Amino acid sequence: MTQFCPDCGEPLLVELPPVRRCIRNGATALSRYLEFLPISEVDKALHLGEGNTPLLPLNRLTKRFHLPPVLVKNEMLNPTASFKDRGTVVSVHMAKSQGLRRIGTVSTGNMAASTAAYGARAGMETFVLVKEDTTKEKLLSAAAPGARVVKVEGDYGELGRQSFALGKKHGIYFMNSVDPFRVEGYKATAFEIFEEFQPGNPGSIVVPVSSGGHLIGLMKAFVELKEQGLCTDLPSFFGVQARGCAPIARAFTEGSLRYREWGIPSTVAQSISNPAPPGGNLALRMIRELGGEVLAVSDEEILSAQRLLAEEEGLFCLPASATTLAGVLDLQGRGRLASGEPVVLVATGSGLKNLRVFPAKHGHVYASSLPDLDRLIASLTGLSISVKNTIE
Amino acid sequence: MTQFCPDCGEPLLVELPPVRRCIRNGATALSRYLEFLPISEVDKALHLGEGNTPLLPLNRLTKRFHLPPVLVKNEMLNPTASFKDRGTVVSVHMAKSQGLRRIGTVSTGNMAASTAAYGARAGMETFVLVKEDTTKEKLLSAAAPGARVVKVEGDYGELGRQSFALGKKHGIYFMNSVDPFRVEGYKATAFEIFEEFQPGNPGSIVVPVSSGGHLIGLMKAFVELKEQGLCTDLPSFFGVQARGCAPIARAFTEGSLRYREWGIPSTVAQSISNPAPPGGNLALRMIRELGGEVLAVSDEEILSAQRLLAEEEGLFCLPASATTLAGVLDLQGRGRLASGEPVVLVATGSGLKNLRVFPAKHGHVYASSLPDLDRLIASLTGLSISVKNTIE
Repeated sequence: MTQFCPDCGEPLLVELPPVRRCIRNGATALSRYLEFLPISEVDKALHLGEGNTPLLPLNRLTKRFHLPPVLVKNEMLNPTASFKDRGTVVSVHMAKSQGLRRIGTVSTGNMAASTAAYGARAGMETFVLVKEDTTKEKLLSAAAPGARVVKVEGDYGELGRQSFALGKKHGIYFMNSVDPFRVEGYKATAFEIFEEFQPGNPGSIVVPVSSGGHLIGLMKAFVELKEQGLCTDLPSFFGVQARGCAPIARAFTEGSLRYREWGIPSTVAQSISNPAPPGGNLALRMIRELGGEVLAVSDEEILSAQRLLAEEEGLFCLPASATTLAGVLDLQGRGRLASGEPVVLVATGSGLKNLRVFPAKHGHVYASSLPDLDRLIASLTGLSISVKNTIE
Repeated sequence: MTQFCPDCGEPLLVELPPVRRCIRNGATALSRYLEFLPISEVDKALHLGEGNTPLLPLNRLTKRFHLPPVLVKNEMLNPTASFKDRGTVVSVHMAKSQGLRRIGTVSTGNMAASTAAYGARAGMETFVLVKEDTTKEKLLSAAAPGARVVKVEGDYGELGRQSFALGKKHGIYFMNSVDPFRVEGYKATAFEIFEEFQPGNPGSIVVPVSSGGHLIGLMKAFVELKEQGLCTDLPSFFGVQARGCAPIARAFTEGSLRYREWGIPSTVAQSISNPAPPGGNLALRMIRELGGEVLAVSDEEILSAQRLLAEEEGLFCLPASATTLAGVLDLQGRGRLASGEPVVLVATGSGLKNLRVFPAKHGHVYASSLPDLDRLIASLTGLSISVKNTIE
């Protein structure tokens, strides 16, 4: 399957025939949005219950920072604990419809686990190509469902490009980050947000940006809803990168049409640390047309936002997801958020996937014997006696 | 709040006034089943989007093992990746309605993370008491949302009992494993299963058993549906323990009314390794009345089932959850499953919570340079050349 334009090198998008479409009734996201997707029916043997994720108002953070109403679309509650499942399920449907028995992906984390799980569910041979220095935890979450995981020594961007030729040769459909069918799957998240706000609309949608595929999918969904006459005003889209790897945000700020490859990434937000995002230029063009912004936030802001989401709202997410709150605080400081218009943060991946990143010093961990517990609790509730924090 | 009968020591259950109840329309589990729950309204500021979890047919496993239709109720897709959230949200509603500002729990894993998250969401001070040797990963997932986590040296069963007195003294509502409101919350899972099968019913429901609270909640829900005339036949209930810590299964096999405390637990299924389950006798009594069974499976069967769920269906769960499939294979072998009657496995917790348990040798992990990748993939797809597995 061709995934990039042979002329300009930019990712190809699915263009649906120009017929009237509507949102159907149905229990699953795929069945409700089927008319907007490049699949003709939902195969229950391929899906894993992705979608239908909660949209939660963050009342405490909204109040604390005097924000417009902020809500989280919690994509952490997908089958493999990240938004990737939304896309993987559509790509796997496509692989099946083409009679393919082998799928693959090039990834360091969320996409690897997602592709491995859906490959197992579909009974397909699954190949996951990862960086040489990938941690054992990440290897395991892709290896657990039985995928063949290959640690590849060499340039990672080059590996991404070569995977398509290898796939063609060996009959493996590589559903990488901007695979056109994967991008179609991300549209379902936007449709769910749209449905939740009916008859209104959110003022803005804020999403972490790595390859650009997720942001492109969310924007494409709202553009299609408008084309179909189902909504009139589009929300503003804000893409957030980490300052230590922000090629798209840099190009946006400079007013460039094309990004320059980032040097060596340096950020805690590993899952969005992509120095040469294959959908970067397309995302830039679309976000300019729709009137949004790609911005960058510092690691300090990201870790602070991660902590705020956990401690104030009970949402423990990866640093990449926390960029959305960091971004909102930045946008608010610059007067970029319309007061009163709801802001939706898309939380993309669970903090369980990288517990080590969470700064241990943030935790309140104490030790006690059973007889001393009464006194310790008294000191913690009364806050009258100083006690030793024993996290390390 | 009193949680155990002062006379017999068994857990107290909520008894709802004898009025006609029905399942309402509503987007969330709590709102649909409100008439069956001891809360008068859903406070959106307290919930985290728990429930509405997928029920997935396991076609490949059903076929491979010639089973009746097996489905998974995937409770891993709750906000903190375990079934505990179903109960915690109801207990937190209760705490709030009583004007309490402090909550707590005694746990080593799933319940700690769940209580910490909902405590943060509610803006309550949260106390989590854990075993002295709890791993850093487990400490972090409770500490991340800002709970005060105390590692307590001493007998763990005794800690559970003393927590209630400490809670009374310091104004902390300890919502432990058989807290009556927590048990009420587990009913929602059963109601969702009931709704999915309408107008039919599953033949059996299979669930891991630790304290007994989860199993009690699921059974109580179906009993109440029957009392209300909403269903006629109840499913059979099967509780599964690990053979290395199976006090309730032992008592069931022996025909005893009360279990004897297990000695030193030894099983990979840590999250159900409870040698003195506080709901054990009540669960025994109820399962006898309803005509089910409590059985035990070996660690070997558990790990094999964990692998089968991951590799055949893309579901990566904790060993405790895999006991359900191991149990089904055992029941099938003994002719205990009615042919053609659907079996629902309740998957209770995500494999992401304990990646280390998953046997590394199960994974297919290889290494390659970029130029050699073509040859490696050829060997893996053609299976003609032997290649080295490099997981360790």
